Amino acid sequence: MSTTSRRDARITLAADAYTDPAWFRAEGDRIFARMWLAVGRDSAIAAPGAFITRDIAGASVIVVRGQDGTIQAFHNVCRHRGTRLCVTEAGTFHGSIQCPYHAWTYGLDGALLAAPQMDDAEGFDKGKYPLKRVACETWDGHLFINLSDAPAPLMDQIHGLPERFAPWGMQDLRMVHRIEYDVATNWKLVVQNYNECLHCPVIHPLLNRMHHYLGAENVPSTETYCGGAMGFKEGVETLSSDGKRRRAVLPGLGARERELVNYFAIYPNFLLTLHPDYMMTITIWPQSPGRTRLIAEWHFHPEEIAKPGFVYEDAIEFWDRTNREDWAISEQSYLGISSRGYQPGPYSAREQQLWEFDQFVIKAINHEGHEEHKA
Amino acid sequence: MSTTSRRDARITLAADAYTDPAWFRAEGDRIFARMWLAVGRDSAIAAPGAFITRDIAGASVIVVRGQDGTIQAFHNVCRHRGTRLCVTEAGTFHGSIQCPYHAWTYGLDGALLAAPQMDDAEGFDKGKYPLKRVACETWDGHLFINLSDAPAPLMDQIHGLPERFAPWGMQDLRMVHRIEYDVATNWKLVVQNYNECLHCPVIHPLLNRMHHYLGAENVPSTETYCGGAMGFKEGVETLSSDGKRRRAVLPGLGARERELVNYFAIYPNFLLTLHPDYMMTITIWPQSPGRTRLIAEWHFHPEEIAKPGFVYEDAIEFWDRTNREDWAISEQSYLGISSRGYQPGPYSAREQQLWEFDQFVIKAINHEGHEEHKA
Amino acid sequence: MSTTSRRDARITLAADAYTDPAWFRAEGDRIFARMWLAVGRDSAIAAPGAFITRDIAGASVIVVRGQDGTIQAFHNVCRHRGTRLCVTEAGTFHGSIQCPYHAWTYGLDGALLAAPQMDDAEGFDKGKYPLKRVACETWDGHLFINLSDAPAPLMDQIHGLPERFAPWGMQDLRMVHRIEYDVATNWKLVVQNYNECLHCPVIHPLLNRMHHYLGAENVPSTETYCGGAMGFKEGVETLSSDGKRRRAVLPGLGARERELVNYFAIYPNFLLTLHPDYMMTITIWPQSPGRTRLIAEWHFHPEEIAKPGFVYEDAIEFWDRTNREDWAISEQSYLGISSRGYQPGPYSAREQQLWEFDQFVIKAINHEGHEEHKA
Repeated sequence: MSTTSRRDARITLAADAYTDPAWFRAEGDRIFARMWLAVGRDSAIAAPGAFITRDIAGASVIVVRGQDGTIQAFHNVCRHRGTRLCVTEAGTFHGSIQCPYHAWTYGLDGALLAAPQMDDAEGFDKGKYPLKRVACETWDGHLFINLSDAPAPLMDQIHGLPERFAPWGMQDLRMVHRIEYDVATNWKLVVQNYNECLHCPVIHPLLNRMHHYLGAENVPSTETYCGGAMGFKEGVETLSSDGKRRRAVLPGLGARERELVNYFAIYPNFLLTLHPDYMMTITIWPQSPGRTRLIAEWHFHPEEIAKPGFVYEDAIEFWDRTNREDWAISEQSYLGISSRGYQPGPYSAREQQLWEFDQFVIKAINHEGHEEHKA
Repeated sequence: MSTTSRRDARITLAADAYTDPAWFRAEGDRIFARMWLAVGRDSAIAAPGAFITRDIAGASVIVVRGQDGTIQAFHNVCRHRGTRLCVTEAGTFHGSIQCPYHAWTYGLDGALLAAPQMDDAEGFDKGKYPLKRVACETWDGHLFINLSDAPAPLMDQIHGLPERFAPWGMQDLRMVHRIEYDVATNWKLVVQNYNECLHCPVIHPLLNRMHHYLGAENVPSTETYCGGAMGFKEGVETLSSDGKRRRAVLPGLGARERELVNYFAIYPNFLLTLHPDYMMTITIWPQSPGRTRLIAEWHFHPEEIAKPGFVYEDAIEFWDRTNREDWAISEQSYLGISSRGYQPGPYSAREQQLWEFDQFVIKAINHEGHEEHKA
Repeated sequence: MSTTSRRDARITLAADAYTDPAWFRAEGDRIFARMWLAVGRDSAIAAPGAFITRDIAGASVIVVRGQDGTIQAFHNVCRHRGTRLCVTEAGTFHGSIQCPYHAWTYGLDGALLAAPQMDDAEGFDKGKYPLKRVACETWDGHLFINLSDAPAPLMDQIHGLPERFAPWGMQDLRMVHRIEYDVATNWKLVVQNYNECLHCPVIHPLLNRMHHYLGAENVPSTETYCGGAMGFKEGVETLSSDGKRRRAVLPGLGARERELVNYFAIYPNFLLTLHPDYMMTITIWPQSPGRTRLIAEWHFHPEEIAKPGFVYEDAIEFWDRTNREDWAISEQSYLGISSRGYQPGPYSAREQQLWEFDQFVIKAINHEGHEEHKA
């Protein structure tokens, strides 16, 4: 991706990219409203009518399982007078979606079924007022939406990852724990923080006992994701409060895959961390230039969950502590970048993924056209 | 008023009209700073010196009863260094209005009576620094102010209403209860909500037992108000928690007027609801595009109030519950309209008053001149 | 300074100067980022490594005592990825300043000593990345910083004051008590309030028992400060809860200086109040057009502090009460100036210092060039 030959030109972004409300809105329009966004797990909406809602880039979206078992997504807005249909983040529709204001009623496929008192309106045609559709696709249990009108397939954005992560059998895993974080930082600083471990010896005493901080083996970055794997230090079996692994290795993993953790940042909002025995997902929800909501979920294999002695708290405890260390320094980073004395600084060679992510952001922001994003 | 012949062109306003701070400021300048605004009841400031203050469209206004019994209104700003004179919403001045900073002292007629230490200032003339006057008129006990310099008479704005509502003898009624609501919605959605009952079967189980929701008989809308009357269902005597009327009918009402409720939205900030035995007033105080303060007051006849067994809680209970149902859905409406998926939707024939109100707003906003509002 | 001959032209500033966010940012750029700002006392950072941080005009600044005893100031921003180095307002560095993110390490003189993993970065030179310096000077124990690149000396800004206040021996005094106030007003209204005592009879019943409110003898204002002295009323010895003086007079004071209080507003952020037996300092920290943080500190002579019966609460009690009276009226002043009815009003002859301060502000805002401020 990089065509810059002089390393010393690789510097951090200007402050505006982090602090300017206009830049933030442009990211909403040109990144979050154009790319595929991870929104959760299909197993969270297993039964017909089950739904989740997510707010992003000024949109509110319902993702719902239909009567036929397929999943579709819609703008969470009534076509009559614009009322938000659903104000909860999860629940179940009983066969249809009814607006709480005037009872316009939609099928789980978005079709307008009933519009009381509209018969008198000249030229009114129910067929013209379905819920506005939002593209929705699934990858190994991960639900993605795309707010653009005719997006390229999800697979273009994540090309190479389905093959790479097939052994983990992610579609089989089930969420056991969830923590939401409200962090006073820019969303890009969360991605930056995830993409390097130079800070691990300084920030993460526990994590630093598990990995060697220079031990990442990164794949070449693409325009839509970056990532790599880190092996364990001697005696460490997984990332848990003491490095011990209390669950069987995921059934599809080979010998090498049992001895490392994969860290992938799938732009713009998905951090996927795969361990020998569990998966942690973090989805990123920018609220304002300086505030980001993060949803972390931990997923385990159903056979392990079913065992009488199943424990998972060691994994949560490890990551909740490590996450909070990351959020705290990312807040401090945002404070510094927001201040008058900040000027872009030099990236080290080991921060190449950060510079590449910056180039992705700049390219997306400079892309003012209305063509859809192509991975 | 309407010259649109094609009904299918009658759609809701664009999102900006509800969410854009610049639009909100324009409404302040071109609607709230030009029209007559309901601010309360003259009986609330019965004695000389009694005052209320109201904040609207960036102004703070004192409405005060003078020594001679007349009511006048003034900007709540000292002419010296601009200090807010009064920070309470109601009270009594003892013969004069004194600035708490440097004791500039004004008569209840606004004249500057004393300005300590200003004698040394060259060319200073107390006559040049009265409190800035705000127009103030009264209609059957309702106080109105107008922030424009030379407004047309109040009667132009409410033409037809004094005759219509004379039987209710509103000037005799006295306020018994007051509730303030802080609602996360745009002020226009409160007016819209008040102007139709299509939502009644969905939102208001109790109200829907009192009226038939299609039973409104509306008067032709004017450029400054709209409204109509709704009859009761069988066995209902007034709007109360059980539909029973526990107070005598207002003395001036004829047979027909005893069997209905009048609902009038007097633009921009006054919702007047008249029952056989009491009056509810709601004044609307926009705070920001997405926040509105509402003051609801219930007024009864003095002869009823004086009776030993006087009760009013049934009327408050009914309306407080119904109001909260309306505010909740109006908040949900604002959320939907604020979201990326919103686009204007079609009005039904029974929402004509809403469309007419929209045209009033658009016309006022497009009217950029500085001429005063003419009803 | 004044060249205006017609007194009746001396009116207060337009509302924008107090309420407009763009004006506020201009003040940050053209006043607070160009002039010397009082930030505290050098005795607060007595030992090598001791530091304070202050946030102003969008900058965060560290003021630190070096190993050699000299005091220097730096932007509180790491040169690597912009992290805020220090999030506490005071503390001690142990020989160096280390970034908590990736351990870039700076000397107390700002030199970059270590930058882990940067050796691989082509062309990286530690000499190019010291902490960004902020000018710092001291006057009789008062620390000042200046955010401009090549400021004129502090003495230009405070010319005349060192001689005037030498008898008070301010460098010897030590801080005993500190109170922070968060005030809902514009910072200029705090300065205005400090610069006149016409309000004293109205606002300050206690203070008004100590001074005659017309008794100020002001020095001619300069472009960078204004002030004067007020004598005591009969029987008053200092400003304390009862007017009694419970500490010895400061050793350098002559007979006349023992009988008055000096009030000086040193633009833009320093209010210096000198009593016969103690000093009160207030530094002003604008947060937004309508919010100002104030830090008040009370300083006494070490010999008095060392005495067994040393008391100081009478001085704190007096001023905390008087300060709160001032902050409350300044908030009310801001409310009035923010309202639609405000228009500039006339200054009296005794408010000349306020008008002169206004001219200082206007001149600074109109000075758009990037030359440094000259006193």
